[in-house]
Amino acid sequence: MVALVNAVAARKQEDREAKLSAYREWRISVPDGPIDLSQYPLSKLTETERAIVQCDATLIVELIRKRVYTAEDVLTAFVKVAIVAQDITNCLSEVCIEEAFVRARELDQHLEKTGKVVGPLHGLPVSIKDHIKIKGLDTSSGYLGWAYKNIADSDALVVKILRNAGAILYVKTQNPQTLLSLETDNNVFGRTVNPFNRNLTPGGSSGGEGALIACHGSPMGVGTDIGGSIRIPAAHCGLYGLKASVARLPHSGLLGSHDGMDAIVGCVGPLATSARDLELFCRVMLDAKPWLDEPALLEMPWKRAVESEQSLPGKLAIAVLFDDGVVAPHPPIMKALKQYKDALVHAGHDVIEWKAVDHQNGWDLIVKLYLLDGGAEYHETIRAGEEFEVPQTEWMLEHAQRRDPYTPAKIFKLNSEREAFRSKALAHWNATSQFTVSGRPVDAILCPVAPTLAPPHNTTRWWGYTSHWNLLDLPAVVFPVDRFKATESAIYSPLPSSRNDVENFIHDQWDPATYDNAPICLQLVGRRHNEEKLLAMLNVLEKAFRDNSL
Amino acid sequence: MVALVNAVAARKQEDREAKLSAYREWRISVPDGPIDLSQYPLSKLTETERAIVQCDATLIVELIRKRVYTAEDVLTAFVKVAIVAQDITNCLSEVCIEEAFVRARELDQHLEKTGKVVGPLHGLPVSIKDHIKIKGLDTSSGYLGWAYKNIADSDALVVKILRNAGAILYVKTQNPQTLLSLETDNNVFGRTVNPFNRNLTPGGSSGGEGALIACHGSPMGVGTDIGGSIRIPAAHCGLYGLKASVARLPHSGLLGSHDGMDAIVGCVGPLATSARDLELFCRVMLDAKPWLDEPALLEMPWKRAVESEQSLPGKLAIAVLFDDGVVAPHPPIMKALKQYKDALVHAGHDVIEWKAVDHQNGWDLIVKLYLLDGGAEYHETIRAGEEFEVPQTEWMLEHAQRRDPYTPAKIFKLNSEREAFRSKALAHWNATSQFTVSGRPVDAILCPVAPTLAPPHNTTRWWGYTSHWNLLDLPAVVFPVDRFKATESAIYSPLPSSRNDVENFIHDQWDPATYDNAPICLQLVGRRHNEEKLLAMLNVLEKAFRDNSL
Repeated sequence: MVALVNAVAARKQEDREAKLSAYREWRISVPDGPIDLSQYPLSKLTETERAIVQCDATLIVELIRKRVYTAEDVLTAFVKVAIVAQDITNCLSEVCIEEAFVRARELDQHLEKTGKVVGPLHGLPVSIKDHIKIKGLDTSSGYLGWAYKNIADSDALVVKILRNAGAILYVKTQNPQTLLSLETDNNVFGRTVNPFNRNLTPGGSSGGEGALIACHGSPMGVGTDIGGSIRIPAAHCGLYGLKASVARLPHSGLLGSHDGMDAIVGCVGPLATSARDLELFCRVMLDAKPWLDEPALLEMPWKRAVESEQSLPGKLAIAVLFDDGVVAPHPPIMKALKQYKDALVHAGHDVIEWKAVDHQNGWDLIVKLYLLDGGAEYHETIRAGEEFEVPQTEWMLEHAQRRDPYTPAKIFKLNSEREAFRSKALAHWNATSQFTVSGRPVDAILCPVAPTLAPPHNTTRWWGYTSHWNLLDLPAVVFPVDRFKATESAIYSPLPSSRNDVENFIHDQWDPATYDNAPICLQLVGRRHNEEKLLAMLNVLEKAFRDNSL
Repeated sequence: MVALVNAVAARKQEDREAKLSAYREWRISVPDGPIDLSQYPLSKLTETERAIVQCDATLIVELIRKRVYTAEDVLTAFVKVAIVAQDITNCLSEVCIEEAFVRARELDQHLEKTGKVVGPLHGLPVSIKDHIKIKGLDTSSGYLGWAYKNIADSDALVVKILRNAGAILYVKTQNPQTLLSLETDNNVFGRTVNPFNRNLTPGGSSGGEGALIACHGSPMGVGTDIGGSIRIPAAHCGLYGLKASVARLPHSGLLGSHDGMDAIVGCVGPLATSARDLELFCRVMLDAKPWLDEPALLEMPWKRAVESEQSLPGKLAIAVLFDDGVVAPHPPIMKALKQYKDALVHAGHDVIEWKAVDHQNGWDLIVKLYLLDGGAEYHETIRAGEEFEVPQTEWMLEHAQRRDPYTPAKIFKLNSEREAFRSKALAHWNATSQFTVSGRPVDAILCPVAPTLAPPHNTTRWWGYTSHWNLLDLPAVVFPVDRFKATESAIYSPLPSSRNDVENFIHDQWDPATYDNAPICLQLVGRRHNEEKLLAMLNVLEKAFRDNSL
């Protein structure tokens, strides 16, 4: 961890440390040597605790409801791991473990007394990304200038719904300076690292979530995504993560820059260790009718009937995107795509190739939409509280080159370009009906999450495999396929020749040793507002893959 | 009609005249004297034609399908009336009657040959507001500078769906300069007047539709609404009109200013002579899955199950808004509200008063959102093609006082204010549960459409009863109650004292004689995305009113 000399940062870190030290007896020393410490936090748990933290959220709530475990048992196990996960990865920001135990005991008593759970998440510990407000906790959101100035006086809507459903809030997790980053580094708490390989980033901006859940320090986390910020940490940490369509899931009560920016809107969403946990999260959120609290949300209940595989066509039509035309992915990702493709073909699904639609233009456009004000607000917020921009902030803000803020006329023009871009992509999708056996357009697109596995710190350079779907406002889910072993690298084919500087940079980076032990994940992209169908299809895809691997 | 000396305007008007003159034998001279000419176009029709044009759209398509009338019979009747309606009100812009008859005969032959209709609107003539593109027709959209420069090379999506459903396009209708007006006046074709009283405006911006349909020159028209532009013409012309939630109905393929402006988005919607025709329009639009063509649209099919009254609570909870706290409505509107309230109470519904939420602040905010660029684009477009702003344009653009365009930071702030405004109003709606007998929040709000009946030309001064629901993005439907007779004015109570300059102006305007023969309409406002329920409730309200009037 980089030592931070700033007094405010030091105080933030001491405060966090103090709250964790209260549970000193659970702490274990972390070895310095190994790059892979992902399994380390489990090493000192009891058998039962180890069983608990390896359950997914769906199973945990079932076992609490059936009184196999108490909420306190469950929280204890996850807290023990979370403390070690923090020591390994620097994934936490705020801590409210004491309050969490009070709540766990309350919930246990309630169940004991009434025989009933308070809601579908009764007793489930859930971790929350830093810039999502939890009443009573500081919300520095990665800015030193905001530290101790934003004690939340209310819960974000997603937190309120989680609480009402019986979830237990116990930690908040790290996000990067500006939030507009696919790594996780800031001047408040420093950098978060990847538990599978500490030389690599866990991704960002929900990187604290990724690192924590990968260590089994949380069964379910809440992140946000405006360019890949849920999906990249899920991918780099070997998890499931869902970015829904804009305005399907609760989004109010966040504290970040650019409040009121409409041109590109982010999404709150879950990271978890199973696909069914993503469904669980969505069901709980939409059963709460959040549109009665947050006017921007769509009145679109969770369609249980669609969620089941029975509602899908017997054979799916899937388009596979191997290369976005800008940066071809590294060999392990290409291999995973091919394996999935083979499995789908073997299972009789209708598989075609997805021809990429203008990923470079899409990136050029979305960066303009991210930085309508030329980066002014980011620069001002940083300048007000800290001395330097972290490297990924610098890289991003260079895209605007400190130009003047756009005029309304220019903003209208960019919005029109965005709609034209979306129209073109939608027509492209509809036109896949010409290439499928069924004559239907494809049901989903299978594609990389990024051109590389979790990259070394400060080297993330291409967002085009994730930000593209934000630009199009399509739901996208990330899921794990495998873990990369550098020793097996001989089987990979050589990289194609580079087409541009970014691809050059990323292809030069390819060295199997660098990525040893990094998770391999893929991404499935659905039609807008079809989150239920997307998750149902993911089940079908994973089954086909498992069956083909036997 | 004001004589326009501009050569381009003269040519536009001559072109329109030439196309109408082709049907000279159907033309009848229009008397100069009477202010009410609404029934005049019917006077020279055959019995059958008169019967046809007095049917609503739902009945017309049924009678064509049952081969009681041919599509050509129907088109002939409506064209005869439309030509006279034009002479009375100046409601038309572009004309494609010849092509319409070709299509009508094609449709008749198809039905004759196959025994089947091509779609649910087989043979229905539908009129289209000028700025909505029809392939091959000019789209001057109320700007002289655009005349002859915007021959549409494709249909707007709404037009495409109408055509596919079997509708016949035959005329486009007048809209005002800038479209940001609740009257209908421009320098291309001049002013449109109200057929019930030609000293009054038919409203705007879909004023050509209002005037034409009121004369029975069209059974169904398509308008647009960003501040009242469907509802005001419906109200001033005694019709039904629906503004749905943003992004429920097709909206692509319009030609107007501020393309790409996201802060407040307009809606395409129907004007018609029955509530069930509004449903018919929505069903046809959403059955076509328009979200597969226009990426901004919600994938939210038309919920037939909700459309029926059976899905409603046995007793509705309705809030009545009598006064928005800025401009109390004129006595005939207050009387209509009271009559409706009495009828609802009499039918056993749960009726409470709706306390207005910041209509003045809402107006101040939405005007800023309308004019983010300080009016620059409007000024430029007008300056490029014509010599003067029509009075209602001048009045609107004065709100911006030619200030500088807003910065992105200011725009973000205004968007946040908009969301805060929406949150406050939503909480207010939810809190009505404290006042209802059932303990449920109210199902809908019953309110005026405007503070006056159709006002004299160039005197529209208060949008707060319509623009408020655009700001909140709530669906709202207008429906007719009665026609005002100046001779009955003695029964009305005096106006309250004025609270501000606008109310002063509007109260000073109250003189029963001014509004003689003007239609009286009211507005029902529903929850966002609940258009089906809104229309189902309207049926219940109208039935209660009819039953109570017996």
